[in-house]
Amino acid sequence: MKHHSLYIYGKNPVNELFADRPELVRRLYIKDSTDPKMFEHIKKMIRPYKTPLLKVHGKKLTDIVGEVSHQGVVAEIKEFPYTDFNTWLEEIDTEDNPLVFLLNNITDPHNVGAIIRSAVAFGASAILLPTYNQAGVTGVVYKTSVGTAHKIPVIKVGNTNQALKKLKQNKFWIAGLDAGGDKRLEDEEFDTPTVIIIGSEGSGMREKTKEGCDYTINIPISKEVESLNASVSASIVGYEFYKKRRKKK
Amino acid sequence: MKHHSLYIYGKNPVNELFADRPELVRRLYIKDSTDPKMFEHIKKMIRPYKTPLLKVHGKKLTDIVGEVSHQGVVAEIKEFPYTDFNTWLEEIDTEDNPLVFLLNNITDPHNVGAIIRSAVAFGASAILLPTYNQAGVTGVVYKTSVGTAHKIPVIKVGNTNQALKKLKQNKFWIAGLDAGGDKRLEDEEFDTPTVIIIGSEGSGMREKTKEGCDYTINIPISKEVESLNASVSASIVGYEFYKKRRKKK
Repeated sequence: MKHHSLYIYGKNPVNELFADRPELVRRLYIKDSTDPKMFEHIKKMIRPYKTPLLKVHGKKLTDIVGEVSHQGVVAEIKEFPYTDFNTWLEEIDTEDNPLVFLLNNITDPHNVGAIIRSAVAFGASAILLPTYNQAGVTGVVYKTSVGTAHKIPVIKVGNTNQALKKLKQNKFWIAGLDAGGDKRLEDEEFDTPTVIIIGSEGSGMREKTKEGCDYTINIPISKEVESLNASVSASIVGYEFYKKRRKKK
Repeated sequence: MKHHSLYIYGKNPVNELFADRPELVRRLYIKDSTDPKMFEHIKKMIRPYKTPLLKVHGKKLTDIVGEVSHQGVVAEIKEFPYTDFNTWLEEIDTEDNPLVFLLNNITDPHNVGAIIRSAVAFGASAILLPTYNQAGVTGVVYKTSVGTAHKIPVIKVGNTNQALKKLKQNKFWIAGLDAGGDKRLEDEEFDTPTVIIIGSEGSGMREKTKEGCDYTINIPISKEVESLNASVSASIVGYEFYKKRRKKK
């Protein structure tokens, strides 16, 4: 893409966006054949924010976002509002033993979106996305996150190892999720601030990233299957975290 | 589709298929530009089964399976080998407190494939697929299952309520997974044969199916998110089941 706009499409994602972060929307495209009642509803919804509304042909929407199920509504936003790593690190309450995910080599945007959705569902405190060989937040990611991507700090990280060092200095423990990991997930107490590194299904974590881990965690599975889907693994970690956190409170 | 063939594509799924169920393959298509060494390897692999091997143009493969990442290898199999419900029910060992998934209104084949993969990973005993408004095992399902769909009995069910009745008569308890469910998943002991019904994310279980449940189960999540992805929910149930089963043994 030549410019830095990000397009968010589909009724639910666009609704969630207007409910939470209307100021991000640069303009809103609506299919010209939209039901007049629905059109009035949308006009009313966006009035307070003075968002420009463009009625366009369905084909134009497909030109913008590609052959996806846009449901006749596309919001153009400025580049995704990533959170700054250092600012976030200064503000995070480590007393609360937060959980953070760092994604490593996850190139499928559907997996990234699904991980974000589950991270929000289970009360994680941030998603760290290395800039190298890792999908950022695109329209597909946003859609797969079911519009939750702006509900959690998403942080771009230029140098993964330096970021891990800084996190360690700030009381975080770094755990890599790995099929051959030392500790079973069920034995993880999440009683410290914790970073969980999720690698790709095929190749796992990068060797150098693995070296930066304090320990590794495994999710026991049957021998019939080689590995779990990356977003499934991350979700199961989130489930276990949220369960233990609720029990402590 | 006019005929009943099912095409399985991608290196891993086809490899798994030959490793486990080579007799299912009717013929194997290979891209004509395949590396000669790889070609020899494949010829050797299929020799014992006398599987016809066809070298074709890459475009022909795309004609067969569509615009998917087939990686130059496509296996044509007879219709997916579904297991017969009654035969399975006669043979299942209920002493072992098996876990079975029944999918309800899950129309996205990616979700169905992902559920099958996690079901195998966590030692579930069968997947029940109603024939009404529920995706069956297609090539996409097979690919998303990462070639695990033939490692677990997959059973088509014409009448869901009758099937649930029969399962109850055979010592199964029927639990629906539902955001507003009575029992938290973490409190489920899985100390009886259990059927877990997974509904669609949007509309959940069908009302009539819900009536057939003995109880409902919820996975607690933050209020920030409306629901979990269906395959994520099923995987978390599988994780909890497998953990408790290992602890008992």
